Amino acid sequence: MPSPAPRTKTRKPAGAPSPWAARRRRSAGHALKRDAVILAAARAFRERGYHNTSLDDLAASLKVTKPTLYLYVPSKEAILFECFRAGLAQIHSTLMECENAAGPARERLFAFIRGYAAAIVGDFGWCMLRAEDQHLGTAMSRRIKLLKAGIDKRMRALIDAGVADGSIRACDTRMTAFALAGALNWMGHWYREDATLKPGQIADRFIDVFNRGLRGRD
Amino acid sequence: MPSPAPRTKTRKPAGAPSPWAARRRRSAGHALKRDAVILAAARAFRERGYHNTSLDDLAASLKVTKPTLYLYVPSKEAILFECFRAGLAQIHSTLMECENAAGPARERLFAFIRGYAAAIVGDFGWCMLRAEDQHLGTAMSRRIKLLKAGIDKRMRALIDAGVADGSIRACDTRMTAFALAGALNWMGHWYREDATLKPGQIADRFIDVFNRGLRGRD
Repeated sequence: MPSPAPRTKTRKPAGAPSPWAARRRRSAGHALKRDAVILAAARAFRERGYHNTSLDDLAASLKVTKPTLYLYVPSKEAILFECFRAGLAQIHSTLMECENAAGPARERLFAFIRGYAAAIVGDFGWCMLRAEDQHLGTAMSRRIKLLKAGIDKRMRALIDAGVADGSIRACDTRMTAFALAGALNWMGHWYREDATLKPGQIADRFIDVFNRGLRGRD
Repeated sequence: MPSPAPRTKTRKPAGAPSPWAARRRRSAGHALKRDAVILAAARAFRERGYHNTSLDDLAASLKVTKPTLYLYVPSKEAILFECFRAGLAQIHSTLMECENAAGPARERLFAFIRGYAAAIVGDFGWCMLRAEDQHLGTAMSRRIKLLKAGIDKRMRALIDAGVADGSIRACDTRMTAFALAGALNWMGHWYREDATLKPGQIADRFIDVFNRGLRGRD
């Protein structure tokens, strides 16, 4: 009896698609649908609140059954966490860019403020700001707190870097980070799509205040 | 038949207390108990969240029955509104003081920041910040929005007065008010009783940032 052929990476002839590619496609399709569930949930939570949105509502808005929903997400709490994570990913990405850019840290901090403002008024901003207030399970709350603290720490490091390179004057960097985060996060409360200013313009006004301060004549 | 005696204010002899005084005492007692209900509710909402606190929980924490609770407040939504109003009263009172004080408006704005910080970390701060997010009835939401907008407007007027008297440099006063309110309101999210800094110390650090800005060397 012939021994089995050795396993080698062979290129399948064109026209005979690999079952792995099909699986990748299926998996990509699954990820796309999962993203759609998370986006729809984020919008529903923002509109009606987390406690007032049921999985039945969500399924109906997506025109699927509730069991279908469970193919993509295990629970409402898990959906909220995924919404939080999606918002966090945006913040992470802008933070990483600013950390790795060249130039004085004050300029990089201000670039981060612009990116953060855009994320906070985006689809996942509400969930990012409110997830912690929904009195989720202890484990989930702890994860969210940890992830938020991570952002906070890196924002503070950017301010510290500014103090170190002289582009930011000596200040209480922890309180400065809280003041900045507060100003930006508050946008999530008052900003609506019909706002007269775009997030970038608001960020620029905030930057002006934080850069030069309010002091006029003494 | 004798006509009835004319109604005159007569001083009752000592030892025979007026039934009106008794009613005043009863009414004062009622107000005190109502305040106790509202304070207990504010603390419960902050600890466990509005949606996770039932009137049964609240009655149990006050060692009364739920029907007794209804002698003081008509509904859970009404309690939240009263909590909101109690926090607002603190803000109003500090705002009025700052509006009526003498001196440059920038100093009066900074005094307001100190009072606001104290109110936001107080018992009613959580309710004041979160009432609007609890998806209350339309009428209630509208009242809360209106009251909040009133505070916002007066805060902006204080900044405008500073620009007018020259103590605050020309800036986008609306966005400046939002940045300030955001920094302060955010305290309600991160500040806990065990915080190393007192609200007044935090306010002073915020004032330093908002007064002088962050700009170091260019």
